[in-house]
Amino acid sequence: MSLERSWVESANSAETDFPLNNLPYGAFAVEGGAHCGVAIGEMILDVTRLEADGRIEIEPGAGKVLEGCDWTAFMGLGPGAWARLRAALGEMLAEGSGDARMLAGYLVRQADVRMVMPFRVSEYTDFYAGKHHATHVGTMFRGAENALPANWLSIPIGYNGRASSVVVSGTGVRRPFGQIKGQDEDLPRFAPSARFDLELELGAVVGRPSEGMVSVAEADQMIFGYVLLNDWSARDIQAWEYQPLGPFQSKATATTIGPWIVPRAALEPFRVSTPERERELLPYLREPGPMLYDIALEVGLAPEGRAETVIARTNYREMYYSSAQQLAHHTTSGCPMRVGDLLGSGTISGPEPGAFGSLLELSWGGKEPLTLDSGETRSFLEDGDTVTLRGAAQGDGYRVGFGACTGTIKPAGDLPGWATE
Amino acid sequence: MSLERSWVESANSAETDFPLNNLPYGAFAVEGGAHCGVAIGEMILDVTRLEADGRIEIEPGAGKVLEGCDWTAFMGLGPGAWARLRAALGEMLAEGSGDARMLAGYLVRQADVRMVMPFRVSEYTDFYAGKHHATHVGTMFRGAENALPANWLSIPIGYNGRASSVVVSGTGVRRPFGQIKGQDEDLPRFAPSARFDLELELGAVVGRPSEGMVSVAEADQMIFGYVLLNDWSARDIQAWEYQPLGPFQSKATATTIGPWIVPRAALEPFRVSTPERERELLPYLREPGPMLYDIALEVGLAPEGRAETVIARTNYREMYYSSAQQLAHHTTSGCPMRVGDLLGSGTISGPEPGAFGSLLELSWGGKEPLTLDSGETRSFLEDGDTVTLRGAAQGDGYRVGFGACTGTIKPAGDLPGWATE
Repeated sequence: MSLERSWVESANSAETDFPLNNLPYGAFAVEGGAHCGVAIGEMILDVTRLEADGRIEIEPGAGKVLEGCDWTAFMGLGPGAWARLRAALGEMLAEGSGDARMLAGYLVRQADVRMVMPFRVSEYTDFYAGKHHATHVGTMFRGAENALPANWLSIPIGYNGRASSVVVSGTGVRRPFGQIKGQDEDLPRFAPSARFDLELELGAVVGRPSEGMVSVAEADQMIFGYVLLNDWSARDIQAWEYQPLGPFQSKATATTIGPWIVPRAALEPFRVSTPERERELLPYLREPGPMLYDIALEVGLAPEGRAETVIARTNYREMYYSSAQQLAHHTTSGCPMRVGDLLGSGTISGPEPGAFGSLLELSWGGKEPLTLDSGETRSFLEDGDTVTLRGAAQGDGYRVGFGACTGTIKPAGDLPGWATE
Repeated sequence: MSLERSWVESANSAETDFPLNNLPYGAFAVEGGAHCGVAIGEMILDVTRLEADGRIEIEPGAGKVLEGCDWTAFMGLGPGAWARLRAALGEMLAEGSGDARMLAGYLVRQADVRMVMPFRVSEYTDFYAGKHHATHVGTMFRGAENALPANWLSIPIGYNGRASSVVVSGTGVRRPFGQIKGQDEDLPRFAPSARFDLELELGAVVGRPSEGMVSVAEADQMIFGYVLLNDWSARDIQAWEYQPLGPFQSKATATTIGPWIVPRAALEPFRVSTPERERELLPYLREPGPMLYDIALEVGLAPEGRAETVIARTNYREMYYSSAQQLAHHTTSGCPMRVGDLLGSGTISGPEPGAFGSLLELSWGGKEPLTLDSGETRSFLEDGDTVTLRGAAQGDGYRVGFGACTGTIKPAGDLPGWATE
């Protein structure tokens, strides 16, 4: 594949995340609500307004699909509608399109708008499917001999997260309070998390519902697209709460997703296989073809008022299980899946220190603080820190990118009276 | 409190779950949808039709609140609206009401209708807040010395469940497949669960949203009402999957709730305190007053074509943490709560064998099978078994009950071709 040229000049740069090849789905605030748009170069095509003005029909007979301020209703129309809209917008925005003059009135500058949630999250599930991450964390907590749990090479380990705390890039993230017990303390205190962390993940957005078990191939076709995802984690709260039923409040403060859902169709040229299996998988988890993607990822950390340091560079192809495998596993019990379900990949870490997708790994449990370009050090996040995730698949002279997924840490604030002695 | 008499004669029986004192919220199927109703004796008052006909105004200016086939929109109106409707219906249904003749046309027999979901579940959280249950399970798995996890007396332990698999009483429950590894096996198999279990719980239905931390007192006021809840659990799938991030597919087959949401207001006369603390709680978890309820509970098990045996009798007052404490804890991280959130109490077991709220405890991990009245034995559930939960608070000559919460086990069926070798 090579660059598909657009009459929107900024979309033809080798540096943009948003060439015509991409056309990711987002939503931006307008007075009294939000509009759906697709990114093209430095601009957004306002598809809600196109539909309202009768310039485009999303689905014959379906009425105004994009009135709902986000892409959820459109996702629910299924893959036929996804393909038709993508083809229609691709033609309209292509170099030489006769619609250019008309469409120019429907472009807004990304720099001029505030992005909002691109879809309504039904339920959020987070996985633990990166072998390097699981090995690093396991080594810290249980030693190198017992790093991976016994089930890890058989199951894409997952747990249910909290949909209500999923927020869009740019939303401030308030440092949480919680029960924390130090190793030398007998009893827990109720205090702000002192080990607040990021997790670099990719989120798969489910666009088709299911009842009963689905195969990996079917699961892949249910995925509408992918977003960057930062699964903020309070390590000190987690350490005290997680036995025996898993993480709960430590993961419920916020999960930040990027503003742009990159369509699965745009990522097709970048498919790669999951790594060789170290233990044969049960038949229901075997993949009929490559289900990961070659997506370069990075994490930037900027202290308040300072320049950013890129603290990690890795790639989505490092995952041991694909989102399609995770989704297939999710349905084994008969669990129904719904439009808008969000599946976090699990932390994406490479094998080398510069490729770790969390501060827990980067500072090795806080024992080896990172030094930023500014000279400051970090074991975990400080108030005012801004974390930015970025990702892109590199084509021949173009890239299919995800935009920036950012969040800034706000101080915990004061406890209400009833929570103090 | 004593019985409040109604002109609906069956509501005045000391045996009915649904005297005028109760007025629980449910929904029943009608052609093309569902209507909202409140139970009164053996009847249901069709409140959707009352509203549609202009006989009652749920909330001035809010339009038709009950068009949506369930009580979710009404719950969202908040406690003022809850109190007004309860008072209005109480007057209309009271003995001597001038509306009796008109209202008689709005009564349907419970026996003639199929109940559907009374509200839309936003997210489902399950807790582990029964000390007897946690002690029993811990003893089986870790021995009596280490039965309770170190955090248990400090935290109402909870984990996020799956809202999409919450179903209403009467829905068949298909035995799940899953990864299962026997203790003498090296690798897991993909097979139907052979240790499929019930869990007797009460569910708290959240009727008011929150942002940021709420106190226990505030949390109590956010609860719209309570339902019976059976948290079906595949113990063999759970044993293999749950480390390190908790239960996932083992709890995702189905969670059955009773058809009737008993209003918090109807339970007020039955408030009791949580048991004495064995470890002082942090201030944010302390209760300003009694937050549990004296609700007698029982579990019935009927093999296919056989009579039911009551296998457990216990009481909600056995819980160590109240739903209000659980909800307050849920918000500590900043996690937003929403209308329709459902909080499972955790399995409600008493200290004695006849009071255990799961087969895992009743058969002590399968080692001591139960003998039913029919002479059959049970360690875990067999295909065709019907499980029925019941519960009621006993007043002076009346009871405030929850109706029956039932589910019948359907066989697992055949695996699709792609899931076999």
